[in-house]
This record gives sequence, C-alpha cells and structure tokens, in this order.
Amino acid sequence: MRDVAVIGVGITKWGELWEKSLRTIFVETALLALDDAGVDRLDSMYVGCMTSGLFVGQEHIASMLADYLGQNPIPAARVETACSSGGLALRLGYIEVASGMNDVVLVGGIEKMTDVSGYEATYALGTAADQEYEGYHGLTFPGLYALMARAHMDKYGTTREQLAQVAVKNHQNGSKNPVAQFPFKVTVEQVVNSVMIADPLRILDCSPITDGAAAAILCPVEMAKKMNKPIIKIIGTGHATDTIALSSRKDITWLEATYQAAKQAYAMADKKPEDIDLVEVHDCFTIAEICVTEALGFVEKGKGGKAVEEGVTAIGGKIPVNTSGGLKSKGHPVGATGAAQIVEIVEQLRGQAGDRQVKNARIGMAQNMGGSGGSTLVHIFERE
Amino acid sequence: MRDVAVIGVGITKWGELWEKSLRTIFVETALLALDDAGVDRLDSMYVGCMTSGLFVGQEHIASMLADYLGQNPIPAARVETACSSGGLALRLGYIEVASGMNDVVLVGGIEKMTDVSGYEATYALGTAADQEYEGYHGLTFPGLYALMARAHMDKYGTTREQLAQVAVKNHQNGSKNPVAQFPFKVTVEQVVNSVMIADPLRILDCSPITDGAAAAILCPVEMAKKMNKPIIKIIGTGHATDTIALSSRKDITWLEATYQAAKQAYAMADKKPEDIDLVEVHDCFTIAEICVTEALGFVEKGKGGKAVEEGVTAIGGKIPVNTSGGLKSKGHPVGATGAAQIVEIVEQLRGQAGDRQVKNARIGMAQNMGGSGGSTLVHIFERE
Repeated sequence: MRDVAVIGVGITKWGELWEKSLRTIFVETALLALDDAGVDRLDSMYVGCMTSGLFVGQEHIASMLADYLGQNPIPAARVETACSSGGLALRLGYIEVASGMNDVVLVGGIEKMTDVSGYEATYALGTAADQEYEGYHGLTFPGLYALMARAHMDKYGTTREQLAQVAVKNHQNGSKNPVAQFPFKVTVEQVVNSVMIADPLRILDCSPITDGAAAAILCPVEMAKKMNKPIIKIIGTGHATDTIALSSRKDITWLEATYQAAKQAYAMADKKPEDIDLVEVHDCFTIAEICVTEALGFVEKGKGGKAVEEGVTAIGGKIPVNTSGGLKSKGHPVGATGAAQIVEIVEQLRGQAGDRQVKNARIGMAQNMGGSGGSTLVHIFERE
Repeated sequence: MRDVAVIGVGITKWGELWEKSLRTIFVETALLALDDAGVDRLDSMYVGCMTSGLFVGQEHIASMLADYLGQNPIPAARVETACSSGGLALRLGYIEVASGMNDVVLVGGIEKMTDVSGYEATYALGTAADQEYEGYHGLTFPGLYALMARAHMDKYGTTREQLAQVAVKNHQNGSKNPVAQFPFKVTVEQVVNSVMIADPLRILDCSPITDGAAAAILCPVEMAKKMNKPIIKIIGTGHATDTIALSSRKDITWLEATYQAAKQAYAMADKKPEDIDLVEVHDCFTIAEICVTEALGFVEKGKGGKAVEEGVTAIGGKIPVNTSGGLKSKGHPVGATGAAQIVEIVEQLRGQAGDRQVKNARIGMAQNMGGSGGSTLVHIFERE
C-alpha cells in the first residue's frame, strides 16, 4: 500500500445557512480545498453525509455534487456511519489512494440541518440510535448521553462542574476559530444554569444543529513531494463498531468502538498516546469528550472529568483536545464533522492555526463517532 | 493490487416481507453468504442502502447489522449512490481486499420498502432525482423514464411492443428464479394493455416496490485457492457519474455514465463486449434495459429495441440479459439490487443457475444504475 498525504483542506463559515442550499455549501467548500491543494481535476470523491434524505429530501448527493463541482464523470460515493460519516469518507479515500486505484481523491462531508423544524431534526438525528429498541420508546440523543453522564458521575465521581469545564474549554478555543458557529466564551456558571435538556445535561452541554461542510484532498506522498506541497501524512487509520443500542452494552461509560479503532490506528502508526501532540474528538455532548479521552488512552479510565478540570486537555496542557472548538463551539453538521477534524489537524500541523496554534505540533489525531458510539473512526496524521 | 474472488453469495425470497424487519432480512441473507463461503468471521463489511432513513426511520445501519450478524467490532460502512448502492458496496469491498487492507469482506445491499404508503415510497424514491430541478416540479421516476422512452421512440423508431418484449423476456427468466418477487410470465398483450403509469410506460413496464437483501463474500484469490473454493474472479470494475437531472443531459436516450463505467471495466479486464457470456442490467423500467444494452456496447446505438425483439438478449441468444428476471420480475429493493446481480452472475458462472443456466458461461457482467443514470457501477467476473 502507498503512503498517502493530505495536500489541501477547505472549510467555510458554519451556522444557520438559510440562504444557501446543500449543493452550494458543499461546492464552495470543496473549491477551497482544491485551491489549497493546487489541483483542478479529481480522480474520485467520497462524501460523508448522515441523512440528507430526512433533512433536505435529497439522496444520491455524491453524483450531484460531483456534477456541480465540474467533475463528472468521476466516481463519487456517499458514505454513512451516522455522525462519523466524514471520518468514514477519509478512511475510504485513504484506502483508494493507498491501493493504487486512484491518485487524487476528495474526501469531505456535508449536512444541511436547519431547513427542518426542531422536532424533525430531533427525529432525523434519532435515526442514528436503534429505532426499534431506543427511538420508539422516546429516547433521543440528549437522553442517551444523559444516561452515560449519570452513570459516569455515579461510577467515577465525575462532577457537574467538570462536564461544564469541557464546554468552557471548547468555547474558549472556538472563540479563536473564524469558521465556528458559536465563537463566544462561556463560564461554568452559565453552563450549569443554562436550560435543562436531559438531566444532568443542559443546553450548553450540547452541540448545536448546524449547516456546514468540510473537505480535504488526498494523493500519494510521492506525488505530493513532486508538487512541492507540505506533506501531512496519514500514518494510522482505525474503524470499529459497537452495538448501536446503549442498552446492549456491558458498560455505558466505556466507548469500546473508540478503544478498538484507536488500537488499530496506534498499531498502524506505531505510536502511543504520549506521542500525540493534539487531538480532535467527538464532543457531541460534554460527557462524550470525557469518555473519549479515556478510551483513546490519554487519561485513565474514570479520570476524564478530572483531566479537563486540571487543564490537561487545554491548549498548553499535556494533550490539547478540540483546539478547533470541537462540535460544541464550532458546530456539528453531522456528516461534515469528521471532515472538519481533518481541516483542524492539517492547519495545526502546518502551523497555520493562528491564535489556536499548538506549539511544535507534529502528530495529530482525529476521533469521529456515530450515534452513542456505535461507530468510530480514528486517524493519525504526521507532518514530515 | 491483489486479485480478488467472490467465494460466497446469499439471497432470500424477495417480496412484501411485512413479517420481517430490515435487520432480520439482512442477517438471514448474510448468513447464507457466510455459509456458502465457509467462513464465520469477517474483517470488514459494506452495506449498500439507498434510504433506510425515509423507508424505516433508521440510519447508521451498517453498525447495527454488523452487531446482529455477530461481527462487532469490525469496520462496517453503509454506502449509497441511490439504486446503485449495492454495486458501490461491491466496488469498495473490492478495493479494500485488493489494497491488502483486509482479507474477508462482506458486500451486500438491503432495502425495506413496503412499510410505508405508496405516496411515501414514491417520495423516497424521488430523492434519487434532482429534487430542486425535478422532484419539486412533480417529476417522479416513471415520469423521467417515460421521457427517455418517448425520446428513444421518436429518435430511433423503438416501438411500444419492443418495450413490452423486455418485460416478457425478463418475466420468462424470472419464472425460473425461486427468489423472484413476481415469478410469473406475461405476454406482450398483457403489457401493452396494463394500467397506464406515465405514457408510454404502463405498470408492466415498471419494476416493483420490494423488500429484500443480497450479499457476497470477497477475499484474495490466493486465499480462495487455499480454501479450495471455486474461483469467481472480479476482473474489472468501473464507476462513473452523470448529471442526476435529466434536463442537464445532451441526449436523454444515451446513458453516458454507463458507457464510461463500462469503458473502465472493459479496459481493466482487457475484454470486449463480444467476450461477455451474460449480463445483468438495471431494468428499473423496460426502456432502461434497452438504453443500457446500447451503452454497454452489446448492440448499436438505437438498436436496443430491435435486439430484444429478435431474441438477441434472451437465454440462448447472442448476449443473454437479465437471466435472473432482472429488476422487473425478481423485484427491486433499491439498495440490494446491485448485490443481487453478483449472486446471479456467480451462480451462472458456477453452473448453479438451474433452468436459467447459460451454457458454458465463463465471463459475466453486472451493470447497476442510480436514479435516471446519474451513477453507474459496472463489474466483470470470470470463472477461473
């Protein structure tokens, strides 16, 4: 298998983009990535999208987006593992380039979520849970993660304030990110006094409903060298699954798929948690970030809350987590989130992250998760 | 890249399966494929599905199906290019095995379409067309293919009876297929006098709404040889896109994505149309089969109608088309159709197709199409 580099990334301002359609948002973003890579012709593309059918009544988007990007008749595939669809696009694009099948491949993600009512959005997102065993009984995602949070608090003594600290840190980081949907800071007091959603989670524990896209261009490292591009190499990929129903798990505080995907990625990259300079993780709710940092091996099991409280995961800490602002502040257009993580890691490893820059960042990781952890993609990147 | 073989296939009876859920249908089918392959452990799986979100309110199905198949925590991806999602699963599984990333990979497809009303099914299927430029103006798929049929009749003199001959041939073949949804024969008179749907297409020109799944197991040829399995090798793969809106095409009687995908597959396999012993094509409507046989190079442009009339595409003819009964008689659970084509080709190349058997079949092709031709996958298989 060939070594693969990311040679271009693109992202546009995320938010409630009522004046733009799904195709417009994606094409504007993909053009930035093509421009950044310095290429105008693709061999193939993968688009992560969770549920454009329910959000905008449009399936078959990969072909449509290839057309509007001026790239027909190239192969174009839409891929989906709920909220980790963007990470899946990266993995499949990586495999295609590594295999030798094609050279220049776009991997991206898109979701247009604000064209429907709040009720419809909650239903659409709920299709990432087990409808027959969870959804039909009234469970929504805030409810599922609230169960995980309550169990983590009971088992490990994680506090309400520690959950809030995740939001405080991520909004602090996001306030320095020009594409973030909510680039404002929040305090622990604001989080713990915000509107209750599903006890113990309040609205400032939850990532928002967002319209947005992100894209990256991959090619073989050998080709990138000839193009004189900065080489950000994909050195590890992992993809694992777990039951999508929370009720089927042995321990709802533990994200087994994240652990398994990370194990694969660490082994392939021949790296350990201590080698990672920064990580983007899937903080769809504050509790998610805590559980993920444990499953990735950055902190001990049960110590994720304490780690954020002590600044371990802040910029300047031992392992900066979600320098982009994470899903919490940057926004969470579900299919695009995994693709946006690539953008942040690449900008950091290139030293282009402005006020959010992690000093001397050379190795970065992205962890992207579907549902309540039923699917997880983990990737490790290294600046050559 | 490594050579890849299909070592197992599975399909269960298609139809209106009201007593079975999506997960049950898929798992029963996948178990048959595993049994046929003689393996009980997968490294990875790809599931083609067009729109389980709209049909059964469930996305994130790949992880769920891996779980119910007893395969967690393996990587599992749902992939989508509308009605060609099953063919896409095959291509991505092929690339993964060929790359060396994984060895034993399941590729399958599923759609559960009959749990919703006819109106809802028509809307869900319409999401494969361009909603903004086609759907919102009232066009449905029978309408789109009716435009193609009318144009083909005007341009090439294709007759109403020739369209009907496609249905007659495919029902004749399907009457010998135990898994077909509609295994009965029809006559030209019955077709041309059946209920009008979108002039000139009548109900017996249309493929049905179906619940069903199909699956195949891939592995490297070298591994298949050690297992003493009959070797059905994938010698060509092609994937191409076109505008998903019919109105954007230069010639609506010509399927450019099918032509482009076939060109790739023929080149990779180093074969010509004359080398192919049988082909499964995407006859979602009778006119589709006529246009596809032209774009694949089996008949001259404009002569597809005449070819079916003259028996060129019948079993025993020059190029047997849709020996399985095609979408028309076997049924069309949209995400599963491309996967079912693999089953038919493998059974034919193994000489296990019973009364439908094409004598001395050694090389087979599958053509699977999304929307009105916006995506096409073409694969060529050879018995070693």
